[in-house]
Amino acid sequence: MQDHFTVNTPGTHELVAGLVNDPYIHPERGNATLDRVREILEIVCDDERAAKLFAECRRAAGEELDTHLPLDDAAGLRAAATLSAGLDDEERCAAAVMLEESELSTDEVIEVHRRYKIPVSHLEDDLLPVRGCGALIRDSRGREYVDLDANYSATNLGNANEAIARGLYNQASLLISQKEDRIGVARARFLREIMPMMPGNLHHFYWQNSGGEAVDKSLKIAKAFTGERGVIAFSGGFHGRTHGAVAVTYNRAYREPFGLHEEDWVHFVDWGDLEAVESLLAEGRARSVILELVQGEEAGIRPATPDFARGLREVCDKHQAVMIVDEVQTGFARVAGGEGDWFASQRYDVVPDIITIGKSFGGGYPVTAVVTKPEISQRMRGGYDGSTFGGNPMAMTAALIATRQMRALDLPRRVVERAEQFKEGLTKLSDKHKVIGELRTVGLMIGIDLDSPERVADVQRRMQTHGAHSSLSTGASLRWLPPLVITSEQVESVLAAFDAALGESLSA
Amino acid sequence: MQDHFTVNTPGTHELVAGLVNDPYIHPERGNATLDRVREILEIVCDDERAAKLFAECRRAAGEELDTHLPLDDAAGLRAAATLSAGLDDEERCAAAVMLEESELSTDEVIEVHRRYKIPVSHLEDDLLPVRGCGALIRDSRGREYVDLDANYSATNLGNANEAIARGLYNQASLLISQKEDRIGVARARFLREIMPMMPGNLHHFYWQNSGGEAVDKSLKIAKAFTGERGVIAFSGGFHGRTHGAVAVTYNRAYREPFGLHEEDWVHFVDWGDLEAVESLLAEGRARSVILELVQGEEAGIRPATPDFARGLREVCDKHQAVMIVDEVQTGFARVAGGEGDWFASQRYDVVPDIITIGKSFGGGYPVTAVVTKPEISQRMRGGYDGSTFGGNPMAMTAALIATRQMRALDLPRRVVERAEQFKEGLTKLSDKHKVIGELRTVGLMIGIDLDSPERVADVQRRMQTHGAHSSLSTGASLRWLPPLVITSEQVESVLAAFDAALGESLSA
Repeated sequence: MQDHFTVNTPGTHELVAGLVNDPYIHPERGNATLDRVREILEIVCDDERAAKLFAECRRAAGEELDTHLPLDDAAGLRAAATLSAGLDDEERCAAAVMLEESELSTDEVIEVHRRYKIPVSHLEDDLLPVRGCGALIRDSRGREYVDLDANYSATNLGNANEAIARGLYNQASLLISQKEDRIGVARARFLREIMPMMPGNLHHFYWQNSGGEAVDKSLKIAKAFTGERGVIAFSGGFHGRTHGAVAVTYNRAYREPFGLHEEDWVHFVDWGDLEAVESLLAEGRARSVILELVQGEEAGIRPATPDFARGLREVCDKHQAVMIVDEVQTGFARVAGGEGDWFASQRYDVVPDIITIGKSFGGGYPVTAVVTKPEISQRMRGGYDGSTFGGNPMAMTAALIATRQMRALDLPRRVVERAEQFKEGLTKLSDKHKVIGELRTVGLMIGIDLDSPERVADVQRRMQTHGAHSSLSTGASLRWLPPLVITSEQVESVLAAFDAALGESLSA
Repeated sequence: MQDHFTVNTPGTHELVAGLVNDPYIHPERGNATLDRVREILEIVCDDERAAKLFAECRRAAGEELDTHLPLDDAAGLRAAATLSAGLDDEERCAAAVMLEESELSTDEVIEVHRRYKIPVSHLEDDLLPVRGCGALIRDSRGREYVDLDANYSATNLGNANEAIARGLYNQASLLISQKEDRIGVARARFLREIMPMMPGNLHHFYWQNSGGEAVDKSLKIAKAFTGERGVIAFSGGFHGRTHGAVAVTYNRAYREPFGLHEEDWVHFVDWGDLEAVESLLAEGRARSVILELVQGEEAGIRPATPDFARGLREVCDKHQAVMIVDEVQTGFARVAGGEGDWFASQRYDVVPDIITIGKSFGGGYPVTAVVTKPEISQRMRGGYDGSTFGGNPMAMTAALIATRQMRALDLPRRVVERAEQFKEGLTKLSDKHKVIGELRTVGLMIGIDLDSPERVADVQRRMQTHGAHSSLSTGASLRWLPPLVITSEQVESVLAAFDAALGESLSA
């Protein structure tokens, strides 16, 4: 039955919008490339129809020499006519969604990265995330996964968040940036919002843009306060990559290429060795200590014992040393064990002198901070530091909305529930699959030992085919850091994917 | 004559929206405070009416105990009814605009900063920017100024930019973040766009979030490439605040409080002393050199001579040393002297081995990068560095749109024209006011020597009253870095404000 108001077949307008970009509505993208059209056809149709339709499209578009060319407007419209006629309603809608997500093909995007990126890190090209929805990510080929990385905890509220997007639009439309030393409305809003979440008397903020930068500055503030350069750090610790942050990071391979492996102000101590800390403090070789209460990155999730955490607080007090807790990954309910556990320090019932915060508190926007108590704050002087982007209005807007959401969602409670569910499920799986060694779960920081790094890689690869994406690992340990908005059903599907992947890997 | 379609007096709806926030539309703000209502009334009405209307408003709102309380919804609506009735059309519209810009009063915003900000930098509370429009900024009290800071060059395209706001909204709605080591669509778009702007063979990127971080990482990359720790830096140079970046920054006061004033790997040389550079390289004490081609921050705009710039390139080549040019402030047409001068290196006709870029290239979004040539890039290894936020999709979206705009606006041409206009006008003023000493203009980096730091502060204060806002200075030098979109008329108004301020200051 024909409705006389329906003049277009479903998805046609969206298809045209994806092929021929309106730069007013989407200044961030361009027209689709022929290679993207081909890729999408190969996904939505069977091979034969895809080849036939692509040939028709290419002929219609008139782009005969190079399939990678972005379509010009006229060619795009001719391609749209061909595609719209050649696809059924469901295929057309699926194609339009994929075009909206990227106008470039997966191969084109990978090729540009290979050609132009300084390879200081391992390039992950197994899948190309293009859209988030809660704890799910969709890739450029239209596949969906439960995200187990959450960008190291930066997207704890999911990989796309309408309120944050809207708030950022509003702020950018008014005032996109202001230097750190100038007073701003967005920052006042944020400070009022976050105060009730902060541990003890940690109420004084200095904003930065990355976790490493926050750590670097926390060390400067500690050194300026104590008047001493010496800092104690721990085996297995990871704190970032700037000169200051990497110097207190244990992995020698991260320091040696830059001649940063023999810094005379850094003293590494075995994780958990309180006596060694006390000796260094007593000898006057250091007046600051930096640690993660739950070691992540380099240690495959290694929590401090409660005795060690409390002991550190005591020896720092005794020797008037500054205790810096790096909460960049553990902060904002990631490791909650009970109500109101916004920080690992709260779970351990220890109030540090300085904490660094970052990742999730901007809901994905690059914003971090050093937070300290009045005694330390009062001793700082104008000129000690400075920043162009630290605490800019966009960062503060994102942080305000993110922290509001965290409180509205009561994240600590959710984390406790989901953590329990993971722990129970994983314990059951470890009875079934003997390859599972130690399990370390602290809130939603989850470390799972398998029998080798190769096994970890194999299991990660197989889990992907079952709709769960994990790319983080340390040696033979898997590290899972799902977005904190992960649902109970999604936890079940991760456990099922892990079960299936382990079964396949062991019988391979 | 009453139009029967007009049911509201002008500005009423906007007034209500400013007093009673809709958190769906504006998740980044809240209801207005009574103190903000009072502040606005004092701006739009005479004192007597303001006091009377505020008393009525407060009675209507029922907030009798504390004027700083944010209005609840009912109180806000009662306040709106009182205000709407008590103000004329023009006053009502002006009040609504100010409420849209901030629901908190200037004093409330300042008070929160004083209470909670670590004072590592001097707090600037003379005016509170709330809205940008091209090169203009509007403050919380409804006054407008031509901006002469551009946030150290971070907002060269103005302090609010609709296309960037829209692009960021679109990207945040799809995917707000992805870690640096994962491939992404937005990054591929950006790389394709920027390639034609890059000097020589500088085509390989590693993204960071702040200028200091980019410098810190450029030093790591140089050290890893040369296998040597030694770095030469210059008197007057400023490169940022992380441990690595501040170590190569000349001002000892920025290093000493943190014990970073005696780093054995840093060798300072007088600005312009080529022989000293060559000696250090010949002795093998350093294999890297870092400089700004036009020294800004600490030197009050000091350009390298063309001979010095070319000489440095030659001695670096001779000794196989890495030449790092810090273009964080000078990049993207700030110092253009002719067509296609996107970077200071291009103006000097020198191709560095590494450049750092930042500030303006994200149009106000915190994004920076290290850019190098294939020989250096190829020698890097996975694990050498890593970043959560570096090159994230929002940063790349902002950078894509900003660089597109810069090219569409042909910024180098505009800068040349406005620079000529400033130079001519300032030269005339220096004939009139003998207090003006040396003028140093390189593109739109402008240094003006006066007779004392006190004079600089006095002139800045007086310029503000004439609608031009400048807060940057070095000793007895004013530093002007206007947004590059400054219009010819705005340049004239700045010159007039400077003229008037000098006249007042000298006759005071």
